[in-house]
Amino acid sequence: MKTKNVVTIGGGTGSFMLLTGLKKYPINISAIVSMADDGGSTGILRDELGVLPPGDVRQCLVALSDSSEMMRKLMNYRFEEGGLCGHSFGNLFLSALEKINGNFSRGVEEAAKILDVRGEVIPVTNADVELCMQLKNGKILKGEEEINHNRDIQKIGIKKNYLKPSARANRKAIRRILEADLIIIGPGNHYCSIIPNLLVKGISEAIRKSSAKVVYNCNIVNKLKHTENFVLDDYVDSINMYLGLPRIDFVVFNTQRPNDRLIKKYASKKELLVEFHKGDRERRDYQIIQINMLNDRQPNYSKADAIASQRAFIRHDDEKLAKILMGILKK
Amino acid sequence: MKTKNVVTIGGGTGSFMLLTGLKKYPINISAIVSMADDGGSTGILRDELGVLPPGDVRQCLVALSDSSEMMRKLMNYRFEEGGLCGHSFGNLFLSALEKINGNFSRGVEEAAKILDVRGEVIPVTNADVELCMQLKNGKILKGEEEINHNRDIQKIGIKKNYLKPSARANRKAIRRILEADLIIIGPGNHYCSIIPNLLVKGISEAIRKSSAKVVYNCNIVNKLKHTENFVLDDYVDSINMYLGLPRIDFVVFNTQRPNDRLIKKYASKKELLVEFHKGDRERRDYQIIQINMLNDRQPNYSKADAIASQRAFIRHDDEKLAKILMGILKK
Repeated sequence: MKTKNVVTIGGGTGSFMLLTGLKKYPINISAIVSMADDGGSTGILRDELGVLPPGDVRQCLVALSDSSEMMRKLMNYRFEEGGLCGHSFGNLFLSALEKINGNFSRGVEEAAKILDVRGEVIPVTNADVELCMQLKNGKILKGEEEINHNRDIQKIGIKKNYLKPSARANRKAIRRILEADLIIIGPGNHYCSIIPNLLVKGISEAIRKSSAKVVYNCNIVNKLKHTENFVLDDYVDSINMYLGLPRIDFVVFNTQRPNDRLIKKYASKKELLVEFHKGDRERRDYQIIQINMLNDRQPNYSKADAIASQRAFIRHDDEKLAKILMGILKK
Repeated sequence: MKTKNVVTIGGGTGSFMLLTGLKKYPINISAIVSMADDGGSTGILRDELGVLPPGDVRQCLVALSDSSEMMRKLMNYRFEEGGLCGHSFGNLFLSALEKINGNFSRGVEEAAKILDVRGEVIPVTNADVELCMQLKNGKILKGEEEINHNRDIQKIGIKKNYLKPSARANRKAIRRILEADLIIIGPGNHYCSIIPNLLVKGISEAIRKSSAKVVYNCNIVNKLKHTENFVLDDYVDSINMYLGLPRIDFVVFNTQRPNDRLIKKYASKKELLVEFHKGDRERRDYQIIQINMLNDRQPNYSKADAIASQRAFIRHDDEKLAKILMGILKK
């Protein structure tokens, strides 16, 4: 039987978790990664070296890497002193490879060889873009970092999300989407990791054309002032809008309640669980798979990956999620 | 037949060239490396991160590495912009591994695994030391960088070279010296790369005790204001003094004259070829092997190693030198 082609679309910790789970299955994985990050170590490297953002790509490479625990630890190591303070070693690694190889995509391919990566990691575009958001009052937020921390987005409302300059998709990303048996969108920061992929010219069109099943992994927790009070259907509507038609076939949704300590912790930051109300709509174009899939084990990521795994306290269990997705692939 | 144990003692570009040549032979190589460097990228990392000096160790690891051309290129890559400007990627790699592993030697061992190193690279000491030189007028020069660039050393004369604080040798270095069949000292910067190894407690004693043949690879060019006008015997006397007795068995000495263009280039900096006058002494405790061994080919180092190879224009041919050393080993 032909090995199935699975494409993931996202960025950041969500993709790290997802790929960690998928990696154990005998499938061809192509991880398409958002290129809009401009915060922290990544932002400094973009500014100072003129490189493309390495952070999200690094997380995906580490998730798919078959190299030693030490190598993975090294890739996630952050310097804590001096002029290097805050820099992730893995980001420096990708930026040096970009410089040596003349462009980011080729650098990422070389990184994948060195890190013995199972599958491939594809930057969604090779263009140097800035994520922008125009609010309904005309104000323009520039850069993922500014958007991520702005607290007026929901209050004022979004008029338009766009990339500046507009950018074409990496051809390989298009090819992999067209060849895919399964396209998995999310989980991840809605406006800063997921949507930026769909703003790249050619991506939504390819997803529409592809005969793949399209799954959306719905986030577990809403983001304050960004997607506060979003229910499942709001996320799906938003993504379908960027896709250009109702293209999502399946939504995977967590029904497990975290323990009270975690709920309180999140509630204190006003970050509440995403809800789903069946009665809100008479019919839906997508099938919702409701399932318990919180990670209530000790983190199963190695210590090397602790940085990524610690960011989210209420998080998907990568093994449970991957199992459900493999079930959809076989349907 | 038992595989022979070969120990090299040095640092910097000299060791890089030597190990590049030796690597092709079926021997056990242990490269003992000076830990006194405090200039450039290495100096900044020592100051800011409190790490041990990675630069010389990096060059030895790259020379002995069986990893891909890309990995070697990466290790020698230097950032050219921003806050990272001047930093060698390989130095950052070693410093991150030191931090992760808690000490430099363990970090170097992990680096050797990642870089698929044939043989082993051993920092001469695990202590954080500063190379010092007291001149005959009482003045104390502190740090390799200051010593390397001081122009009064020969005019005033050296009273004493020492490390501050005094440091014990890495145990593994001692063990490898005692087990060695051949110990190769040099080539390299006399006061900044070679002697600093012999200032570490235990190294000279181990060389005296070892039953290995001891070879000194005499430098080709004298260093202005440091070893100006040194002839071969001066180098040997100086090293034997630090060894505590005349322990050098063989001296390998280049007799090939570089082309006029190179001679002029060096002469303009007042850096002249080391000379040897047979009649200076009636007898010597060491056998001198005179041979043509300049590198008059195009650099045989890969492009990846260009930084190291370009530093020295008049340089040893690593293949010719290694062949002679293997001849001595078989004697």
